[in-house]
Amino acid sequence: MGGQSEKWVLMVTARTPTNIAVIKYWGKRDEKLILPINDSISVTLDPNHLCTTTTVSVSPSFVEDRMWLNGKEISLQGGRFQSCLREIRARANDVEDEKKGIKIKKEDWQKLHLQIASYNNFPTAAGLASSAAGFACLVFSLAKLMNLKEDNSQLSAIARQGSGSACRSLYGGFVKWIMGKEENGSDSLAVQLADEKHWDDLVIIIAVVSARQKETSSTSGMRDTVETSALIKHRAKEVVPKRIIEMETAIKNRDFASFTRLACTDSNQFHAVCLDTYPPIFYMNDTSHRIISCVEKWNRSEETPQVAYTFDAGPNAVMIARDRKTAALLLQRLLYNFPPKSDTDLDSYVIGDKSILQDAGIKDMNDVEALVGPPETKGNVLGEKSKGDVSYFICTKPGGGPVVLSDESQALLDPLTGMPK
Amino acid sequence: MGGQSEKWVLMVTARTPTNIAVIKYWGKRDEKLILPINDSISVTLDPNHLCTTTTVSVSPSFVEDRMWLNGKEISLQGGRFQSCLREIRARANDVEDEKKGIKIKKEDWQKLHLQIASYNNFPTAAGLASSAAGFACLVFSLAKLMNLKEDNSQLSAIARQGSGSACRSLYGGFVKWIMGKEENGSDSLAVQLADEKHWDDLVIIIAVVSARQKETSSTSGMRDTVETSALIKHRAKEVVPKRIIEMETAIKNRDFASFTRLACTDSNQFHAVCLDTYPPIFYMNDTSHRIISCVEKWNRSEETPQVAYTFDAGPNAVMIARDRKTAALLLQRLLYNFPPKSDTDLDSYVIGDKSILQDAGIKDMNDVEALVGPPETKGNVLGEKSKGDVSYFICTKPGGGPVVLSDESQALLDPLTGMPK
Repeated sequence: MGGQSEKWVLMVTARTPTNIAVIKYWGKRDEKLILPINDSISVTLDPNHLCTTTTVSVSPSFVEDRMWLNGKEISLQGGRFQSCLREIRARANDVEDEKKGIKIKKEDWQKLHLQIASYNNFPTAAGLASSAAGFACLVFSLAKLMNLKEDNSQLSAIARQGSGSACRSLYGGFVKWIMGKEENGSDSLAVQLADEKHWDDLVIIIAVVSARQKETSSTSGMRDTVETSALIKHRAKEVVPKRIIEMETAIKNRDFASFTRLACTDSNQFHAVCLDTYPPIFYMNDTSHRIISCVEKWNRSEETPQVAYTFDAGPNAVMIARDRKTAALLLQRLLYNFPPKSDTDLDSYVIGDKSILQDAGIKDMNDVEALVGPPETKGNVLGEKSKGDVSYFICTKPGGGPVVLSDESQALLDPLTGMPK
Repeated sequence: MGGQSEKWVLMVTARTPTNIAVIKYWGKRDEKLILPINDSISVTLDPNHLCTTTTVSVSPSFVEDRMWLNGKEISLQGGRFQSCLREIRARANDVEDEKKGIKIKKEDWQKLHLQIASYNNFPTAAGLASSAAGFACLVFSLAKLMNLKEDNSQLSAIARQGSGSACRSLYGGFVKWIMGKEENGSDSLAVQLADEKHWDDLVIIIAVVSARQKETSSTSGMRDTVETSALIKHRAKEVVPKRIIEMETAIKNRDFASFTRLACTDSNQFHAVCLDTYPPIFYMNDTSHRIISCVEKWNRSEETPQVAYTFDAGPNAVMIARDRKTAALLLQRLLYNFPPKSDTDLDSYVIGDKSILQDAGIKDMNDVEALVGPPETKGNVLGEKSKGDVSYFICTKPGGGPVVLSDESQALLDPLTGMPK
């Protein structure tokens, strides 16, 4: 290892996706290790539209561990950060960068300090699983920096200790978080059920819904549910295990009808146990309810379901359409029922994969205003049409897992100083 | 019996209260007989503020059974009306009115036709259990007209076949609907746990909430829940039986803290199983949620709960305050958070027992506008204050059971013709 006098900085930049659970995680059996009371299954979202980028750096000149999130320094003193850093350091190996003439020995990692910068390409506060992508990216990039030999599944068990759902962001495609049995949590980790290419027809539209009320954090919410709900145990022990098996089969067979039934009923049941919590927790609001009604009415008017929906701990809807054509029809329905405020331009109201908007034949706000009610509503307006209930839509699809970004221009830290660019 | 030529009309007028379940009925084991999957417990509401008045009449000149609801003729051909009429006629006895010189023999009731008028002193569409009071009043008044010997509990088993919750409106105070075991439903009936004087501190405030969406009827809603919810069986078999015992004890001991915990958690769980239905059923809306937050925040800021809440198959909140003083403080909080639209006058915004408004020190709209946020909110506004989210408030209290109105001026039918006045 170079001495403290040496001024080298070694760094790694990685990008990690968010994920959306289609069989939900809600309730811990161990608060500290973050061990869940049931298995869960998620779809990884395309990191081109929703991801965290993290640069981790090490230098003998750093005097303490520091981190910046979206450009603002944050504390690393929290137990969850400390757990991840401790677990990663414990597995660190020798690292050699011949070009830069840097040698770090395994045991040096305990003394060396880190500087970390992380950035979400979507609003952190929008309730889009930013902590999942964030902890997954932190663990993945540190593992690369410190030359860990563990595979992504083993890394997922470390990311899990930062944020439960983070473990599912270590893989692309369709991912299962196995709850595990061990008291130390070593077998509570993520496995990939299928990669994103296995079922590449699917298109995802996210409605970011304007919230009037501050939400209950998922950490305290699920603690309250486990302590007070008379239904959560039955859900975890009797209902979810069957659904996990059925969902694995649905994904394996690309059976969209079963996938939809399971995703929708499990999202609804998660919100049901939130309501069965005392005091009750409400994550969905009237706009969320109207989105569900819109999708359900359409699904029931067709021979087979067109769109699945799922809601996490907030009012945002994640809708999964069976294919591109369906996604375009869905977007028409959504823009008809949830038009933007008059001062919003279409380009900022529908973001992500804008080709879906083209498929829907919508070029500008005049096209949105010209939309007519879909046939399944038979002219009945679905509740009151109120502009601004949805902040914006994101068009995306299932996507790949974490990747290292080798292009140094994508690093968030200055290669010479290790400070945020 | 006088012949067809005779022009006499014999009639009875009765008044029956509505009731609000504090341990909920949701789900039938027999659709036709209306047999529930669990016991339920209700509080009868003061008929001075919420009741149905029904006049039933018989005359040899009537050529068919006819009924008017709130002045509009309705069909009696539905199975539920037919069940009630058949069950009542089967138990009819000899009737003699010496003054009018009328004699009706037991067997004549099968041939004689009825004319019926019914009136709710509250909006039928407001989701305030109008069918419960309606069928209870129909059965009670017909039982008096036809001189039935059955007691109110036995009558409740007939009213139950009109509308399940109607059976609980045969008594005042606190009422239990025993689900029963018999296949023919003979033991599925209401019993009084305590009369309204047993716990006469309680004050009830109902928020009639403006709804944006049409609601699912409770009949189809509970059928869908029984068919599709993975949680309803667990609720009916494991959760409710314990709560019934605890609620009976809470009522017996006038234990307001336990009463509140049980009423609130059971209301929430009923709405949870609605959400666990596929497609999901939403009865509460954002306004309902904000009312719950308002009450929960206050209850938690006090040493002991001040107010219980419960919601039926709609967005309206029924709040039960521990005493008059608490009710006045509750009304202040409600008017602060849910002010009327600017063109609404206070007199039509708070109806029923207006003395609660006086206790709250509120004489006019200026007093409403001068209200300040309650201490437990610490200056934080509970979501957005939006005028018009509540249509109006009704102040009332637990009340008595069905009564015959002997004053003929209160009859809804003309004593000579049997036609609506």
